[in-house]
Amino acid sequence: MTVRFGLLGAGRIGKVHAKAITANPKAQLVSVADAFEKAASDLATQYGCDIRSVEQILQSSDIDAVVICTPTDTHADLIEQFSKAGKAIFCEKPIDLDVERVKACLKVVDAEGATLMVGFNRRFDPHFQAMRKAIDEGQIGDVEMVTIVSRDPGAPPVDYIKRSGGIFRDMTIHDFDMARFMLGEEIETVSAQASVLVDPAIGEAGDYDSASVMLATASGKHATISNSRRATYGYDQRVEVHGSKGAVAAENQRPVSIEVANAQGYTRPPLHDFFMTRYTEAYAREISTFIDAVETKSAANPSGLDGLIALALADAAVRSVKEGRAIKVSEVTGALADKSVFQGR
Amino acid sequence: MTVRFGLLGAGRIGKVHAKAITANPKAQLVSVADAFEKAASDLATQYGCDIRSVEQILQSSDIDAVVICTPTDTHADLIEQFSKAGKAIFCEKPIDLDVERVKACLKVVDAEGATLMVGFNRRFDPHFQAMRKAIDEGQIGDVEMVTIVSRDPGAPPVDYIKRSGGIFRDMTIHDFDMARFMLGEEIETVSAQASVLVDPAIGEAGDYDSASVMLATASGKHATISNSRRATYGYDQRVEVHGSKGAVAAENQRPVSIEVANAQGYTRPPLHDFFMTRYTEAYAREISTFIDAVETKSAANPSGLDGLIALALADAAVRSVKEGRAIKVSEVTGALADKSVFQGR
Amino acid sequence: MTVRFGLLGAGRIGKVHAKAITANPKAQLVSVADAFEKAASDLATQYGCDIRSVEQILQSSDIDAVVICTPTDTHADLIEQFSKAGKAIFCEKPIDLDVERVKACLKVVDAEGATLMVGFNRRFDPHFQAMRKAIDEGQIGDVEMVTIVSRDPGAPPVDYIKRSGGIFRDMTIHDFDMARFMLGEEIETVSAQASVLVDPAIGEAGDYDSASVMLATASGKHATISNSRRATYGYDQRVEVHGSKGAVAAENQRPVSIEVANAQGYTRPPLHDFFMTRYTEAYAREISTFIDAVETKSAANPSGLDGLIALALADAAVRSVKEGRAIKVSEVTGALADKSVFQGR
Amino acid sequence: MTVRFGLLGAGRIGKVHAKAITANPKAQLVSVADAFEKAASDLATQYGCDIRSVEQILQSSDIDAVVICTPTDTHADLIEQFSKAGKAIFCEKPIDLDVERVKACLKVVDAEGATLMVGFNRRFDPHFQAMRKAIDEGQIGDVEMVTIVSRDPGAPPVDYIKRSGGIFRDMTIHDFDMARFMLGEEIETVSAQASVLVDPAIGEAGDYDSASVMLATASGKHATISNSRRATYGYDQRVEVHGSKGAVAAENQRPVSIEVANAQGYTRPPLHDFFMTRYTEAYAREISTFIDAVETKSAANPSGLDGLIALALADAAVRSVKEGRAIKVSEVTGALADKSVFQGR
Repeated sequence: MTVRFGLLGAGRIGKVHAKAITANPKAQLVSVADAFEKAASDLATQYGCDIRSVEQILQSSDIDAVVICTPTDTHADLIEQFSKAGKAIFCEKPIDLDVERVKACLKVVDAEGATLMVGFNRRFDPHFQAMRKAIDEGQIGDVEMVTIVSRDPGAPPVDYIKRSGGIFRDMTIHDFDMARFMLGEEIETVSAQASVLVDPAIGEAGDYDSASVMLATASGKHATISNSRRATYGYDQRVEVHGSKGAVAAENQRPVSIEVANAQGYTRPPLHDFFMTRYTEAYAREISTFIDAVETKSAANPSGLDGLIALALADAAVRSVKEGRAIKVSEVTGALADKSVFQGR
Repeated sequence: MTVRFGLLGAGRIGKVHAKAITANPKAQLVSVADAFEKAASDLATQYGCDIRSVEQILQSSDIDAVVICTPTDTHADLIEQFSKAGKAIFCEKPIDLDVERVKACLKVVDAEGATLMVGFNRRFDPHFQAMRKAIDEGQIGDVEMVTIVSRDPGAPPVDYIKRSGGIFRDMTIHDFDMARFMLGEEIETVSAQASVLVDPAIGEAGDYDSASVMLATASGKHATISNSRRATYGYDQRVEVHGSKGAVAAENQRPVSIEVANAQGYTRPPLHDFFMTRYTEAYAREISTFIDAVETKSAANPSGLDGLIALALADAAVRSVKEGRAIKVSEVTGALADKSVFQGR
Repeated sequence: MTVRFGLLGAGRIGKVHAKAITANPKAQLVSVADAFEKAASDLATQYGCDIRSVEQILQSSDIDAVVICTPTDTHADLIEQFSKAGKAIFCEKPIDLDVERVKACLKVVDAEGATLMVGFNRRFDPHFQAMRKAIDEGQIGDVEMVTIVSRDPGAPPVDYIKRSGGIFRDMTIHDFDMARFMLGEEIETVSAQASVLVDPAIGEAGDYDSASVMLATASGKHATISNSRRATYGYDQRVEVHGSKGAVAAENQRPVSIEVANAQGYTRPPLHDFFMTRYTEAYAREISTFIDAVETKSAANPSGLDGLIALALADAAVRSVKEGRAIKVSEVTGALADKSVFQGR
Repeated sequence: MTVRFGLLGAGRIGKVHAKAITANPKAQLVSVADAFEKAASDLATQYGCDIRSVEQILQSSDIDAVVICTPTDTHADLIEQFSKAGKAIFCEKPIDLDVERVKACLKVVDAEGATLMVGFNRRFDPHFQAMRKAIDEGQIGDVEMVTIVSRDPGAPPVDYIKRSGGIFRDMTIHDFDMARFMLGEEIETVSAQASVLVDPAIGEAGDYDSASVMLATASGKHATISNSRRATYGYDQRVEVHGSKGAVAAENQRPVSIEVANAQGYTRPPLHDFFMTRYTEAYAREISTFIDAVETKSAANPSGLDGLIALALADAAVRSVKEGRAIKVSEVTGALADKSVFQGR
């Protein structure tokens, strides 16, 4: 079976997925939709697909799956519509910036029995996957403490920051998902502190640019996250897991790994300076995993639930900074009719 | 001038200092005192010094300085006595496990104008010193975030744990001091979480074996600390400082640095498995610094104040775990008659 | 302009080039030829090109360039034929195993003014390219000594060995080219020693599996090469250049770069185990460079001359082992009508 | 038993040994002799020993062993005298610059049954010792190829060069010994090339400053050595051994191992810049090994024979450069009455 794709949104991340779909022998890019006509036609030309409206794609019988790369505030609506249309859905994170809206959306997905995968691309990085595999093989015993350092080369424009939901929902959300991925157990409490050290304009926009987070699970496992919107040395993405029998860590990645030695010392080049070059292979593996799920009609992973939980952790972090205390995740999610929503995997 | 030493306590750490004093051309080990006669005589034979009682050393005109390596509960009394006797004092940390007792002790030291240095040996590690120097030279710009990972090869006996004051006062206290050393600014709030993952007996003794801490300064700088009482791969001691223009980090140290490659991969040996071999050079530099301070009659550093602040941070961490909230350091130290006590350096 | 390609040979390396051509927006794969029909049709199906005979490709007006991936003993003839047909030619190394045959072939290429590039893929590895760039920028001053360690994961089948021309012409030839690439000066003398340590069957086939080489240039620069047909830890490919002001080195590459720590030490995974995964990016950059040369009608590099010189160095090494002395390269190449043949670049 | 030492020569290396002897609980430094009175008295004061003439030490019944740190041209005579006087002898390398003189000297040593150890300090470096141990444990299978890179931070004064015996006898001699130490088999042939790239004055003095060497054993094992009298990045000392089941390597050593990251990349400090700081621990272990040999009346290792063989390899290298061919070591050593002289260990 060839999975036939419609692509919603032809922007930066849309192009990444178009390339991955086209290169995948099990998939075909049939159509692209974008409110901005030029973006759609450029992408259509480059990857040899046609152009349709979102409504047309909804009704296209020659399309099995969609990739949602539109602005965040459209995600939940589109997921609901395409769930009802019987299409498999890959949606860039986040589903929405509001936990209640996400919960409502996931109810529709569940009701329709739709396939929904959320784009936490880092789970598909070969290095982080190899860490997870080493853990699964028992190489480090029981997981005890996860340490994540995650720093962007530079802060995004303040206009972006204003619409982003804030550092915890925009940036740390990836680290929340990574912490869960490595911990293998749901997080119970979140403690966070945050400040403005990089750019006062970010503070004026009501956000932070530097943040630390501590997470704890019911069984007493720990995770710490250290975030900054600035790193002169490149895109700093390190994960380390300490366990009862050992530890495993993924080093930073750089485009070239030479070393120059002279009287000043031994120098290696800076890291990747852009998430797309850092995570090139991860994006390809991510779409490949989605295609396999669609083809085999199995559950997609990370799921809508994973998206909801990561958002709830971000909400808890925001509250922790404001109130100066550890926040229980259940304070954010409230009483759930169906407890299984948080059962994780 | 040769600084003439009396050594109080001929145990494990006493021997380390005896060796460092003997090897230092500016110092002479005159006398050792130990309640356990055999310990004193063994050390006296090995390093060619005589044996006296603590009282005799107090009254010895041929002794300029003492090194206090006796049990913790004697430290504060001895500091007060030797301050009054006009001797320069090097005291192993902590001064006492009780903040109020430490404050009282330091008042005596101040009143007598005594020289008091507290044994935070890690500040004298060549690698951490080189980090501090790189920061002072402006190589990383303004310090923003300190990340400390500190793990012991194995937990001490539960008997020791019971007398230790708990993980924060016994183990993390070194990391609190290191955080201050690198931050260059006093810490305002402490958030901590802790659990028992290594040995249930530690929990039964009322302590934790795994802990995470977040620290914040008034200007918004961050530090995170990750502690475990177990690391199968050796004595894990890493410090990293992220700043506005870059970052600096100290790698772990191992006794030998070979690498064996075969079909299983590339393997380097485990780390040092003992703090004394890891910090051999630090102990020598520490005593050398104290000798220089005595010789030049200048202030010793880290001071009694540094000892007090590190203990207050530990107390705040204990309280944060219990109350699930960020603790202001001022909640622990209370109103101070002399605010300068916390002015740091 | 789109460069339209005919591919000669649909084997392992043919597929690599087919993929690179197809992915390159400036190129189009028009046709494939292979004596083995199934190989041709599989490749044609996968990459959407047609199938023609070599003779048909020679006469195809819709083909601008060919990539020669056929057996070695056909290379020289094909180069001559396609030179005369006015096609640009990319040929896998070596042009031939016989120096005189190569010289004759290159005379035809010169006479026809044909574009010929020889497949020394390692020059296009991003890491080795970054080394060359660092040298060109003067970061290490004048190049003085090149050190190459190059080891295969395992020996090829003895049948392959018998046809290969021997370790120096088959394996070391890449290192000879790399030495020239880094030295930036022609090699004057070659000293070599070789033995059979890996597999006696290789010795019975008249070849060696372990070799060391020393190279010297007229100005006294050095290169050393260490080769083995076996490396349990993967495909070992290291190059280091020492100069008057410093040194530059390229580390080995591995598919994933995690590190697992436990009581046995710190272990990173083995290296790539196959030259095609190790040099994936190099192959893509190589074809891209050829396409640019064809498009801009500029000289291709590495040229036929580079292929000839590398082969002459291999011949010199063979002779050095046999005669136990340093061989002048001019002893191999003999008197050349046109000395510029060896002027290098 | 305490081994009582006389030290011959109070220069730079004499001081290193004086310190190591004094720090060793099994040894006592009794006396020092030096033609330069001030040097002797300074050392005597610092380490608390007396001053005697060489003749007095020869006749001193309270001296068991001597350490010879005098100029090279006195070594052989002193070894013979002290052998006859029944003292155990540690002699800095080389025994003499002339192979025949060394052979004559060793005959006296053998005849007297004297204990003679030659100062190849690198064998006692903890990292190289750990490599040897890994090999002995079978971690890399059979040794096949040894790769040594050895570069000095800077060239010594030309006056020193003139008396040194040339780069092969002065500098490479350490690498020859290291190659034998790692190969575990005697070397049969030596091929070398050398040039002047660092300083023309070295060439005018009849020596080289840049050299490459290939060594082969009877069973076909290889070693390569790359030497330069200049390395802007410090004292470059790397050894790597490739075997049938894997490889083992020792990394370079630096005084501090921090890493600074910024927009220019990741920089670690230069290496040690002096052999004495690089090999501090090796010197201590070397003397300790000698003391143990004296105490237990067992053979010292590396022996006079090891000194002779290393010198013969240097002579072979000199000849190889001049004659442009591989030299058999037997060409240098000639017919030996007692073949066992070269049996190695």
